[in-house]
Amino acid sequence: MTDITDIDSYMTDLGKRARAASRLLAAANTGAKNAALHAIADDLDNNRDQLITENQKDMVAGKEKGLDAALLDRLELTPGRIDSMIEGLRQIAGLSDPIGEIFDMNFRPSGIQVGRMRVPLGVVGIIYESRPNVTADAAALCLKSGNASVLRGGSEAFHSNQAIAASIHRGLESAGLPADAVMVLETTDRAAVTSMCTMPDYIDVIIPRGGKGLIERISEVARVPVIKHLHGVCHVYIDDDADMRKAFDVALNAKTQRYGTCNTMETLLVASSVAEQFLPEIAAAYLEKGVELRGCDKTCAILQNNCVAANDEDWDTEYLAPILSIRVVDDMQQALDHIAAHGSQHTESIITENYSKARVFLRDADASSVMINASTRFADGFEYGLGAEIGISTDKFHARGPVGLEGLTSVKFIVLGDGHIRQ
Amino acid sequence: MTDITDIDSYMTDLGKRARAASRLLAAANTGAKNAALHAIADDLDNNRDQLITENQKDMVAGKEKGLDAALLDRLELTPGRIDSMIEGLRQIAGLSDPIGEIFDMNFRPSGIQVGRMRVPLGVVGIIYESRPNVTADAAALCLKSGNASVLRGGSEAFHSNQAIAASIHRGLESAGLPADAVMVLETTDRAAVTSMCTMPDYIDVIIPRGGKGLIERISEVARVPVIKHLHGVCHVYIDDDADMRKAFDVALNAKTQRYGTCNTMETLLVASSVAEQFLPEIAAAYLEKGVELRGCDKTCAILQNNCVAANDEDWDTEYLAPILSIRVVDDMQQALDHIAAHGSQHTESIITENYSKARVFLRDADASSVMINASTRFADGFEYGLGAEIGISTDKFHARGPVGLEGLTSVKFIVLGDGHIRQ
Repeated sequence: MTDITDIDSYMTDLGKRARAASRLLAAANTGAKNAALHAIADDLDNNRDQLITENQKDMVAGKEKGLDAALLDRLELTPGRIDSMIEGLRQIAGLSDPIGEIFDMNFRPSGIQVGRMRVPLGVVGIIYESRPNVTADAAALCLKSGNASVLRGGSEAFHSNQAIAASIHRGLESAGLPADAVMVLETTDRAAVTSMCTMPDYIDVIIPRGGKGLIERISEVARVPVIKHLHGVCHVYIDDDADMRKAFDVALNAKTQRYGTCNTMETLLVASSVAEQFLPEIAAAYLEKGVELRGCDKTCAILQNNCVAANDEDWDTEYLAPILSIRVVDDMQQALDHIAAHGSQHTESIITENYSKARVFLRDADASSVMINASTRFADGFEYGLGAEIGISTDKFHARGPVGLEGLTSVKFIVLGDGHIRQ
Repeated sequence: MTDITDIDSYMTDLGKRARAASRLLAAANTGAKNAALHAIADDLDNNRDQLITENQKDMVAGKEKGLDAALLDRLELTPGRIDSMIEGLRQIAGLSDPIGEIFDMNFRPSGIQVGRMRVPLGVVGIIYESRPNVTADAAALCLKSGNASVLRGGSEAFHSNQAIAASIHRGLESAGLPADAVMVLETTDRAAVTSMCTMPDYIDVIIPRGGKGLIERISEVARVPVIKHLHGVCHVYIDDDADMRKAFDVALNAKTQRYGTCNTMETLLVASSVAEQFLPEIAAAYLEKGVELRGCDKTCAILQNNCVAANDEDWDTEYLAPILSIRVVDDMQQALDHIAAHGSQHTESIITENYSKARVFLRDADASSVMINASTRFADGFEYGLGAEIGISTDKFHARGPVGLEGLTSVKFIVLGDGHIRQ
């Protein structure tokens, strides 16, 4: 670890260098950016032994510190994970470059022609936890979208991240781009994180990737915009006009296809007129998969011993586990009220064959993704065709839902004239 | 003034009511919103005497408090200004409704169809200064874009704003929309402003409309996003490949068409190879209009007694007055460097006939509006065809440049399936 005694001056220097590099990167052409991405991929490929050696230092230190098995698993760089990291870089090279797109150009009565041009945000700060592959992934998304990046990974992955950073820097330079375009912090001092969040002159936006605790801590101190992904309390509402086959398939998939993801359903809402028909069958399927069911009074009355009573907290809980809360509602309006009160504005789905109710649900469910007859598990940048995802925003401001390259850009107005003056 | 002793509970109640109204407004159809806008306009038209009576209370109090003439002028509601306020409401009724627009719908390999739908932000807080017409204007823009609003005008306009609020509430109700959709604060307590900026549960975004001081104070305390318009230090760069006629027209217009606006040019940059030809002619035109010129050494050498020496501060100053700083630069790159160092990311213009330089300037000038051969004075929502403008954002995040109805919206992903589940 580099000996850094004065964090403030270290961070100011780093911020200034990132800002200067961001101007060069904003002007870099697509070919140079893609060449850099491939060069980074090649460099990682040529330095697999070094990567694994450095990663082993982190693994040994992690074991000594007593990190749990799940954390150690996330920390480890296996040959397969290095393959994925390399493949990810090449995929991002293959995406269209969002920068420089000009659109909505129209002539105005004054004679000027006005439209907009897509431009980078500038410098993006990313704060993440144990997985070292995020270093390559985040750097690549920022690079492709013309942004300089300042990356702060988990302290337990320090050596791995530095090794990946070395490949990134060599790759950038071999493509004629400034190494300063990707700054990987050379300190694990926590003061550097606070610093990153409070340098509006040098960092334009912060994206925290990690648990709710990390994101809340960062939002608390930040003096720059934060693209937040707090949590996912996602609902599926089974309408009385649902096709019961689709209802069964989606409700089962949304809960059990994966338990630990933010787009997993946590609460199932069922219209009362179909509850007696629907609940026993789906409950049997959940129980077979080992899902614990926590229901409202009506649900418990129908499911009897297969269900425990849900308490008030359950409706607001992101279980990330094989647990599901179930509530019987009078109708769609009560489902929408429940979602407004307890949802986290992540993903909401209705199962219905009714055209009018589908339209109302689409309009009134206030979430980053709203679905009709589809599993909440589809809420994902790759499934949506964004090509890559730097996170999912549960905010309404700037980017909402899965954030791909476009979420890392801004637009400016451009005006073309011929000596036009304002009257 | 209503007797409000507990500001916190007053604001919490108001926030809850605005949030509840925002859900109804988000679901309101275009016809109802337009009917409300016309009903508000009619109500103002039918209550002109009352408006002027209430405004006179503010005028008398303002004179007693010793407000200066400019402030009293902004405060006054004349019959002509009431006409404009009414006309403004009817114009906003005539704009297209941005809400509910569905776009980019595409099928994905999984079979789901994914796209986006434009939705309101929710509750918009607006903090403004003396002009009472802003109350009607801001309420109308929020209403049309499906947002509830919480409005806090200048304390000196308290009675005028309450009278306008009464018309707004009657108009909303006559169109079947909730009066709570537009909340005009019934207190002038400054604690209410802090409260507005720190209620993320009830207010989604704050738009301050006023001087730089107001905006900085609000940004300092805000815990919700702020659409900021800090200041305009706009440049026109006269390239060595400029058409000298266009250069003259634009440089004169950008400075002298109006002095007090944020899109007025404050610094003129001139390529050294054309400075001796261009500067004496344009300087004569400025001097004839009474513009004080402050130049760099080279400028002063050319203009001699017609110019005083600029100091370091001049390059960062928004004069809002008949004063212009002038710098001779080596070439476009030096102009861009000057703009990066001293510009406020508002509006930058190049005058050139050179295709390649125009393209580079368009890309590299980092501002909310970048122009070729056009006066910076065009940077305006109406000139750009947005139909209306709630402010100009000098931020890159969310909205940038003139902010119209679209800047008051967000988009959500929508997914249409047919019982699709994730594999």
